[in-house]
Amino acid sequence: MLPTRLDLATLAAAYRQGLKPSTLFAHLHALARADEHLAWISLLPEGELLARARALDEQDPASLPLYGVPFAIKDNIDLAGLPTTAGCPDFAYAPAADAKVVARLIAAGAIPLGKTNLDQFATGLNGTRSPYGACRNAINPAYISGGSSSGSAVVVAAGQVSFSLGTDTAGSGRVPAAFNNLVGLKPTCGLLSSSGLVPACRSIDTISIFTLSAADAAAVFAVARGFDEADAYSRPAETHGRRFPAGEPFRFGVPRPEQLAFFGDPHNPALFEAAVARLAALGGTPVVLDFSPFLDTARLLYGGPWVAERYHAIKDFIERQPDSVFPVTREITLGGARASAVEAFDAQYRLKALKRRCDAVWQDVDLILTPTAGHHPTIAAVEADPIRINTELGYYTNFMNLLDYSAVAVPAAIRADGLPFGITLFAPAHQDIPLLELSARWQADTRLSPGATGQVLPDVPFIPEPAASGMVRVAVCGAHLSGLPLNWQLTQRGARLIGAVRSAPEYRFYALAGGPPLRPGMVRVAEGGGSVDMEVWELPARHFGSFVAGIPAPLGIGKVKLEDGSQVCGFICESGGLAGAEDITPLGSWRTWLARHA
Amino acid sequence: MLPTRLDLATLAAAYRQGLKPSTLFAHLHALARADEHLAWISLLPEGELLARARALDEQDPASLPLYGVPFAIKDNIDLAGLPTTAGCPDFAYAPAADAKVVARLIAAGAIPLGKTNLDQFATGLNGTRSPYGACRNAINPAYISGGSSSGSAVVVAAGQVSFSLGTDTAGSGRVPAAFNNLVGLKPTCGLLSSSGLVPACRSIDTISIFTLSAADAAAVFAVARGFDEADAYSRPAETHGRRFPAGEPFRFGVPRPEQLAFFGDPHNPALFEAAVARLAALGGTPVVLDFSPFLDTARLLYGGPWVAERYHAIKDFIERQPDSVFPVTREITLGGARASAVEAFDAQYRLKALKRRCDAVWQDVDLILTPTAGHHPTIAAVEADPIRINTELGYYTNFMNLLDYSAVAVPAAIRADGLPFGITLFAPAHQDIPLLELSARWQADTRLSPGATGQVLPDVPFIPEPAASGMVRVAVCGAHLSGLPLNWQLTQRGARLIGAVRSAPEYRFYALAGGPPLRPGMVRVAEGGGSVDMEVWELPARHFGSFVAGIPAPLGIGKVKLEDGSQVCGFICESGGLAGAEDITPLGSWRTWLARHA
Repeated sequence: MLPTRLDLATLAAAYRQGLKPSTLFAHLHALARADEHLAWISLLPEGELLARARALDEQDPASLPLYGVPFAIKDNIDLAGLPTTAGCPDFAYAPAADAKVVARLIAAGAIPLGKTNLDQFATGLNGTRSPYGACRNAINPAYISGGSSSGSAVVVAAGQVSFSLGTDTAGSGRVPAAFNNLVGLKPTCGLLSSSGLVPACRSIDTISIFTLSAADAAAVFAVARGFDEADAYSRPAETHGRRFPAGEPFRFGVPRPEQLAFFGDPHNPALFEAAVARLAALGGTPVVLDFSPFLDTARLLYGGPWVAERYHAIKDFIERQPDSVFPVTREITLGGARASAVEAFDAQYRLKALKRRCDAVWQDVDLILTPTAGHHPTIAAVEADPIRINTELGYYTNFMNLLDYSAVAVPAAIRADGLPFGITLFAPAHQDIPLLELSARWQADTRLSPGATGQVLPDVPFIPEPAASGMVRVAVCGAHLSGLPLNWQLTQRGARLIGAVRSAPEYRFYALAGGPPLRPGMVRVAEGGGSVDMEVWELPARHFGSFVAGIPAPLGIGKVKLEDGSQVCGFICESGGLAGAEDITPLGSWRTWLARHA
Repeated sequence: MLPTRLDLATLAAAYRQGLKPSTLFAHLHALARADEHLAWISLLPEGELLARARALDEQDPASLPLYGVPFAIKDNIDLAGLPTTAGCPDFAYAPAADAKVVARLIAAGAIPLGKTNLDQFATGLNGTRSPYGACRNAINPAYISGGSSSGSAVVVAAGQVSFSLGTDTAGSGRVPAAFNNLVGLKPTCGLLSSSGLVPACRSIDTISIFTLSAADAAAVFAVARGFDEADAYSRPAETHGRRFPAGEPFRFGVPRPEQLAFFGDPHNPALFEAAVARLAALGGTPVVLDFSPFLDTARLLYGGPWVAERYHAIKDFIERQPDSVFPVTREITLGGARASAVEAFDAQYRLKALKRRCDAVWQDVDLILTPTAGHHPTIAAVEADPIRINTELGYYTNFMNLLDYSAVAVPAAIRADGLPFGITLFAPAHQDIPLLELSARWQADTRLSPGATGQVLPDVPFIPEPAASGMVRVAVCGAHLSGLPLNWQLTQRGARLIGAVRSAPEYRFYALAGGPPLRPGMVRVAEGGGSVDMEVWELPARHFGSFVAGIPAPLGIGKVKLEDGSQVCGFICESGGLAGAEDITPLGSWRTWLARHA
């Protein structure tokens, strides 16, 4: 009766077949209480947890998008009823309300089990910097869990919850995903509210999401996100750019070989090469690019004044009770007090210049592929050399939020030693959903068991939300064709030619009266129609409206049926505007007509 | 033969009638050399100036957009051939190249006369803080010119050039415009390249434009702007939002009466009231709003860490040669060295929160109207109390760039004492062109002589660039009408209802087969048509494309002819899609048909 795994599809099926939330949560509470990874800091009391679950027992499972979905919350995010410690017992406070994101998830039917361990004040990428103990990796407890969202990753990997919330300023939502064989969505900053989050670097913090699958991450993300007037760093979602559905070629960047760093790891170089080959097999063309501006940006994060934000976040506390702070965390944080405003602005200038250089790559590629971490140290190794190894862990992650990019960490392989190897796909802000779509295709291709579950997930089709698409294809048949007088109206809007097509043989084709420019019109007819040579162009949806607005009667933009039966936006013509037009259907091509009449 | 004034229309007419640039520039060089306002720091040698002019003599005046237009350059912007002093002789350097904006203007035919006086390092709003002397106001030399772009404003007002470049970080492009009876465009930051500009606060600096008229400012702006890869703060122009053509109502914000500050000035309160009434008469509805978040933001600029940017800009110089810096400027700038990075981030957090509060007003109003400055002190008064009065001058200006807004300062009245009173119109970023359009209507309405010219300008029609329009109107006749099932597709895109209209009586109206949702179709016919009840909605062009892309065949968006003969974007229907449709032309209204068939 209990589901064998907690991915959303399996869980929803179990509920449909009669499982009651209270049954599941009694089991999960026991599991969490018995956890040996040092992954939890606090759990909701069993009575309260079961009361929450029983409140759902009699509801229709289809009534809520996350009906009875168990989740965990990193302990720097508020859940009313449990203290928020940020990994520091003396700092703990009792929050009056749930964090905004937590409240959205609970309102959608999700039920939190409790709060998870973390590198104190979310400072660290390794999972050992906690007075609650160094979190154990879910696959091999001798190895680090990664951090700072250590416990959140481990409890998903261990099958104790369906998903968890982490946070990600420098890589805290991605490195633990890689080390625990999970999907880690590092959303575009500002899309998930930070209300109720203990800040690390407030200007570049974001809540993150750990799941077994990209499809689950998309489902949680859809519920969790939303503009928050009360969070000054919240921002509205924007339409995304290029999507990555199957069958559509794309281009992905890869750092130059000498710019890849594996820190002596014997397995990962070959596994990354294999990942490049796999993404190429999924339709991507690899493009080797100069990664140095990204690495220079990464160095700004801890070398520069952003550490002052960490100090700002706990200034009063650390000044009053320095001994309450974990030694390595104290050392790093107090360093943030020393920088001057002049240095802060100087670093912001350098970041602006570096972002200009980094952003230039998006003219060449649609996304970039890197390892998520170059190597995977043991807990003992990190404890012996805590700063250097932590810095190494941020090699592929530290630049991401400074540059305002979106990123998804995805499992790529299981190494010969049984540890997971993970990759990161990243792209500009607001590309979260296309990246998740590609990650879902990646997971379907790898067929790896995620986390420590030992189970292959069912293939869940990834359905991006309809409103989110950012590109529009438009079929043109006349003056907008390549090289013809109005083609600039497409190219100046950033349109690119997808290819030549023919319409379905259902159109009368006319050379309209008037001009210049000379224009044709396509009128769909029930019988007696022919095919027309067309070109399909693709342009950003945000520029399509002004294109449409500029089209004079009798032409307009509707749907044109192509030879293969598909429909695409394209030029249609009002039949009432055909006075004086010449029927050129037999030619079936505007270029042919032009050649004869030029 | 010489034009009586230097506005672009008058100057172009003079060139068309045979005036040669070399003739004009010989005259202008003499005028500038005889200037008694202390407005110039350096002039191009007469020989070089005339060589530049003679190079244009034989060209067709219509061949260049700014053919032979004389201009002045604030002396913190590079012009190759003259030193850049930034108002500090010991700081001066010989620039190797023209600033990017200067180069664009010269390439368009404009000719620079020289470099103008300024508050040293662009620190100040009064025009007295210069070792080259306190710049004299063009209307009354006992009064301050305003600053920091003091000389640039004065030479336009005095009729020595057609336009000038200033800079504007805190108000330096607006206060001198107000005090010299000019238009001062403070563009959206990043649209004019800062390459070749001595920074003040690099993150919020912009070059600004002084002209006699809003139409001239638009013409200069069109040439000057352009994305600059080399300037990390450059950004591409975005389509603007609502325009302000005659006949279209708009809403403008005005601070609460107790939030207006005139610092004891006897004339300006009544003149500002009259300005509110004038803008209302031009079609605006005044909305009194809480100005406190704007004032709180203004206080951040000098009270907060942004002064560290001023120190950053001249750090090495001021540390090496503190005595080379004007005393008040030195005191302010060295203050910037003291702030910590923690304070810098703290202020940036406060700014984020304040911007959220300020931006909320744009849901209520299309622009905001304020005085440009509350009072107009004498040079003697400022010299007696240089910091306090300067702070007062920034009351309506200091917040603008921190909030990323666009603004235009415009002359509003001549006071009983002969001094000018000016207003500022401001709006979100990228609203530069609509604000200039409204400013042009304002100027045509006031019919004031700008500057110290004593001449009323000719009415020049303001023609905004065609590509810049940001709103689209679309006529709907079916399921998108208010309250009907698909109306959300408009409202979720920020559309607002403009009003009910009827189509021209040239359409057959059909209830299409299929649904839900039930949909009608309008097919334009040569005869036998009727009128259809429609609604016109207006929405941002950037959201119109996704709306169009979602429309299924046989419907599309083309041009619909309205009862008054005008054409507007609207739903059209392919005649080939009428199979099974019911002709409901006699009803002429989808709501009527629905009422009968619901």
